[in-house]
Amino acid sequence: MSYENAWLAYQKKPPTADAAYFSSLYVEGDHRVIATAREELLRAAREMFGKDMILCENREEATISFIWDRMAKTGEEGYHVREDNGKITITSEGPKGILYGCFACIRWVKMEKPFAGMDLLEKPSNPIRILNHWDNMDGSIERGYSGKSFFFRDEKVLVNERTRAYARMIASVGINASVINNVNVKGNATRLIDPVYQEELVQMAEIFADYGIRLYFSLNFAAPMELGGLSTADPQDEQVQSWWQEKMKDVFRRIPNLGGFLVKADSEGRPGPFTYGRTHADGANMLARAVEPYGGIIIWRCFVYNCQQDWRDKKTDRARSGYDNFMPLDGTFLDNVILQIKNGPMDFQVREPVSPLLGGLTKTNQMLEVQIAQEYTGQQRHVCYLIPMFREVLEHRTYCSNEQDTVADIISGRTFHQTNCGMAAVANTGDDENWTGHDLAAANLYGFGRLSFDTDLSSEAIAKEWIACTFGTDPEVMEKIEAILMMSWPAYEKYTSPLGIGWMVNPGFHYGPNVDGYEYDRWGTYHRADHLGIGVDRTSHGTGYAQQYREPLSSQYESLEKCPEELLLFFHHVSYTYRLKTGKTLIQHIYDTHFEGAEDVEKMAELWDSLEGKIPEKSFERVQNRFAHQMDHSKEWRDQINSYFYRKSFLEDEKHRTIY
Amino acid sequence: MSYENAWLAYQKKPPTADAAYFSSLYVEGDHRVIATAREELLRAAREMFGKDMILCENREEATISFIWDRMAKTGEEGYHVREDNGKITITSEGPKGILYGCFACIRWVKMEKPFAGMDLLEKPSNPIRILNHWDNMDGSIERGYSGKSFFFRDEKVLVNERTRAYARMIASVGINASVINNVNVKGNATRLIDPVYQEELVQMAEIFADYGIRLYFSLNFAAPMELGGLSTADPQDEQVQSWWQEKMKDVFRRIPNLGGFLVKADSEGRPGPFTYGRTHADGANMLARAVEPYGGIIIWRCFVYNCQQDWRDKKTDRARSGYDNFMPLDGTFLDNVILQIKNGPMDFQVREPVSPLLGGLTKTNQMLEVQIAQEYTGQQRHVCYLIPMFREVLEHRTYCSNEQDTVADIISGRTFHQTNCGMAAVANTGDDENWTGHDLAAANLYGFGRLSFDTDLSSEAIAKEWIACTFGTDPEVMEKIEAILMMSWPAYEKYTSPLGIGWMVNPGFHYGPNVDGYEYDRWGTYHRADHLGIGVDRTSHGTGYAQQYREPLSSQYESLEKCPEELLLFFHHVSYTYRLKTGKTLIQHIYDTHFEGAEDVEKMAELWDSLEGKIPEKSFERVQNRFAHQMDHSKEWRDQINSYFYRKSFLEDEKHRTIY
Repeated sequence: MSYENAWLAYQKKPPTADAAYFSSLYVEGDHRVIATAREELLRAAREMFGKDMILCENREEATISFIWDRMAKTGEEGYHVREDNGKITITSEGPKGILYGCFACIRWVKMEKPFAGMDLLEKPSNPIRILNHWDNMDGSIERGYSGKSFFFRDEKVLVNERTRAYARMIASVGINASVINNVNVKGNATRLIDPVYQEELVQMAEIFADYGIRLYFSLNFAAPMELGGLSTADPQDEQVQSWWQEKMKDVFRRIPNLGGFLVKADSEGRPGPFTYGRTHADGANMLARAVEPYGGIIIWRCFVYNCQQDWRDKKTDRARSGYDNFMPLDGTFLDNVILQIKNGPMDFQVREPVSPLLGGLTKTNQMLEVQIAQEYTGQQRHVCYLIPMFREVLEHRTYCSNEQDTVADIISGRTFHQTNCGMAAVANTGDDENWTGHDLAAANLYGFGRLSFDTDLSSEAIAKEWIACTFGTDPEVMEKIEAILMMSWPAYEKYTSPLGIGWMVNPGFHYGPNVDGYEYDRWGTYHRADHLGIGVDRTSHGTGYAQQYREPLSSQYESLEKCPEELLLFFHHVSYTYRLKTGKTLIQHIYDTHFEGAEDVEKMAELWDSLEGKIPEKSFERVQNRFAHQMDHSKEWRDQINSYFYRKSFLEDEKHRTIY
Repeated sequence: MSYENAWLAYQKKPPTADAAYFSSLYVEGDHRVIATAREELLRAAREMFGKDMILCENREEATISFIWDRMAKTGEEGYHVREDNGKITITSEGPKGILYGCFACIRWVKMEKPFAGMDLLEKPSNPIRILNHWDNMDGSIERGYSGKSFFFRDEKVLVNERTRAYARMIASVGINASVINNVNVKGNATRLIDPVYQEELVQMAEIFADYGIRLYFSLNFAAPMELGGLSTADPQDEQVQSWWQEKMKDVFRRIPNLGGFLVKADSEGRPGPFTYGRTHADGANMLARAVEPYGGIIIWRCFVYNCQQDWRDKKTDRARSGYDNFMPLDGTFLDNVILQIKNGPMDFQVREPVSPLLGGLTKTNQMLEVQIAQEYTGQQRHVCYLIPMFREVLEHRTYCSNEQDTVADIISGRTFHQTNCGMAAVANTGDDENWTGHDLAAANLYGFGRLSFDTDLSSEAIAKEWIACTFGTDPEVMEKIEAILMMSWPAYEKYTSPLGIGWMVNPGFHYGPNVDGYEYDRWGTYHRADHLGIGVDRTSHGTGYAQQYREPLSSQYESLEKCPEELLLFFHHVSYTYRLKTGKTLIQHIYDTHFEGAEDVEKMAELWDSLEGKIPEKSFERVQNRFAHQMDHSKEWRDQINSYFYRKSFLEDEKHRTIY
């Protein structure tokens, strides 16, 4: 299947003064990643300016110089780009910094920023910036909305030109690691650590290495049984331990550039240490010891909860489970273990509070997990630009110290002086021509990379960059698409489940409205709506979840008045007639936001329509078709939610709009 | 996989006087089905009495005689069994009658009825008694709850000893036809009419023929395109017509004992005549003409409705669609077309009114379709003896004539002097050892056969027969299992959706409670519950469905007071505070029946438990395990339904039981 180059598609530029910079290149330092940077720069010059850059033997003759300088004070992955007197120098302590600096220059061109006087020193905010692909070896993708896998097909590993296209795309926005297989490791995926897929995996690892990307696999905790024929996977069992040690010795020897492993254990039916009465620390540390000699990392997911709840039980609370499971273990994990924590306590809803583990844990390496696969946010058929949501999470103050207590501070390693930490995103890619199904969903992939590299970038700045790189700098295009992106998450939030309560989707596939879809289910995802009100009491009178936060957050969430209203129904059971700060009743707020949300979609669609002729036709039509569906579907959401609450409450819409 | 013999399992009998009858056999008439009868009788004598019957050359010497007498006045499939002076004679006009008479004698033994003075003349009520298997060629069974298909596996047709076991089992209860493949005909199943599966299908047809069973296939209306490479399947197209004529000539020549075809057209995404602007009569008649030279029958399903409804539209009514589609065509179908009509207008709910097509149509061959696969009645994990439901349908007066106007009259051919008519059941079998998953579900398979052969048999009589044949005649066993069976359908109705409204199940797989599961869906299956009431107004003020019935039914359904209460919510939107004839409010009725239903399950489970030691262990445990689940699951139903209505209505249970 053919593929496009997304934000790396280079169109020929009209001649400008800046073209002169792309005349000749000097490269100091010999490294495969620097060689990649050189090729990327040459390609960009050729495709954008129609110029074949001359490779110079000495720096003075070159218009652009790459300088690998171990004393550059940029860090291995930072870079310093300076323009001086018609010449550009990209300096870094490490080869990856050179590559990132090179992509920064290309971005500069695409955004039509003048190079004159440029002086840009950038260091990545997060040490690890990783994608988690949920790709299965049969070619399907769990929660994939952009076609099939380009890593696997028919139980085989795929390596082809698209592998390289993928690597350069994610490296161009600073992503430095990738887990290629689903965290739910089954069947042949368990064998990725076996020699059987050796040849293709080495090829892939080499391509990744060219772009400074570490290869990771998801691991099956039960592998000692499934592959090794042992009768147990108990982490305290010596046979199990030595099986893993041998296996890791073997796999790190065979596959260069292997970063480590991602593990989902004891969750949603996956095997784990609980089976043997062991803790997650026992499980993670055993694996960490096995990979430690090779510099390997174990990333351990904190998505552990009881998925056999009873809706009649009002005490058990899925939201509590991450904290309840992992807080007692704080400080017991080895240094090459990272806990990967979802942004919220539930599961990637359109609105959740920040997980109390973030800022709760103080002696454990932490990675923030977000999901750019739009599982619960429109599945890449609705536009939903998620960077503003991620920014809110990053800016969230946890009060775990007096300063530098935001989530961004913690996961960057600043707060607790850690280096094994960062950001992970569940990827939204597939083998669709445009990689992400919805063309505008590429802004989330681009944005995740850029934001994880620089957590100070604003959502708007990222949007502008992406639009310019993807669709060019026509001011109307820039403005309107930015407007669409910035409206999209709030719109989606408005027409779906209200005020932080979440869910209300069709069970299983998680698409489309179904208010009671999970209400009587075993997943612990309830809204408790009745004739008088809705919401889950998670205060100390209820499940006590609010108490998992540090002060003043805890008191704030406890209080009906002080609780941020966008999270009101997550923390409180509230009467439909309760007056919000706007003066509206809760029920009127529900009606109003649902009508507004659907109207917002019409506005976004109109904005898009007005760009006809300014956007490549194929892309224009793909997005237009998706907007047609989104308009229809947002009305379905609006009508189901409004009808549900009207039928239950019998409270009239003050504006007398149609509610069925 | 091994299999049991269900009600044909013969245990050694203690010596009784009746054993003497099974000494010698005289057979008059040479026919494969009579040969089968002979073998069945010899086997029964051997296994029950340990006796090898002697085959006699003349009638006087024999204790049992088979007499194929074309003047016997029994009809081809009827039989006359008479005992006289220590000798039994089974007489029939046709070989099938002999076989059925033979099985009647075996049943007699198993029920321990004395043969002395026996004089039994039986003629089948319905000409066609057919099973519809929804088996797919990959081995799966649509709505199958008893394992995999024993007809197909891995895209191949299976013929083995189980094929014969199946044939004798269904012939033993008088079933004379079987459609072996799913009505949703896709992929290789379209090719069953091609020579490719010739060898196996002929073998199967021969086995069926030994037992007097006609083989039927489900047909893909689009076969001329998919197999023939034509660009259309338009029934008015001459190329299409001649393609079918050639195809039918070929298939009837190749496969002996072929009865005809079942067609689901223009339904739930299946192709059909509507695609070409033709009527169902055009489609059915075209096929009928093609099979007519070979005595073939076209069974045309009337399950046609718009499955793209909008829940916001309160005028369209799925219940109306069968009548709306087919009534205008009455009288236009050829004589070898049979319309197969589901018992109710929706889809095999635990309670529905009888389809108004039954008794609406007066000039068209009709077959009643029931479903013994328990799709909506507990999926063979709950016990639900369906014969009482079928009996109610058969006894339903349609008022299409002054007398002989019941459904039983119509489908037997009595009312309109038809011969192509009868009863069909969607089968509940699979390759589970016990054939039907739940051991007690075999009573539905047995019962369907017996009831379709003799629509005058009571549910209790059928239950007694089945119990005696399956578990023996111990009075405690007989009484308790009969009690369980007779309680089971009312219990299931009590704890699931109330008063005929139906649905309230999880969409797609149709198992377990989900009150709003279909409420906002496109399938036209709504309950319209709000704060004050529930139900669908199908009177002339609503969708007008009630007007599709003849008087006095129509007026009866129109009236809130006269409407049978078990169908109240099917026809009326009713306030929760409406007083039923019992004096209870509707809401109290909902609460009470749901508590009662769950209690009934406990009673049934206790009855079963008390039979420990009297039932073969394997069977006992299988049923016990299923009862454990049913107890749990009926409480889940009770609690979800009660909570849903309590939360919506805020009307208290008068008895103050726990509602969540």
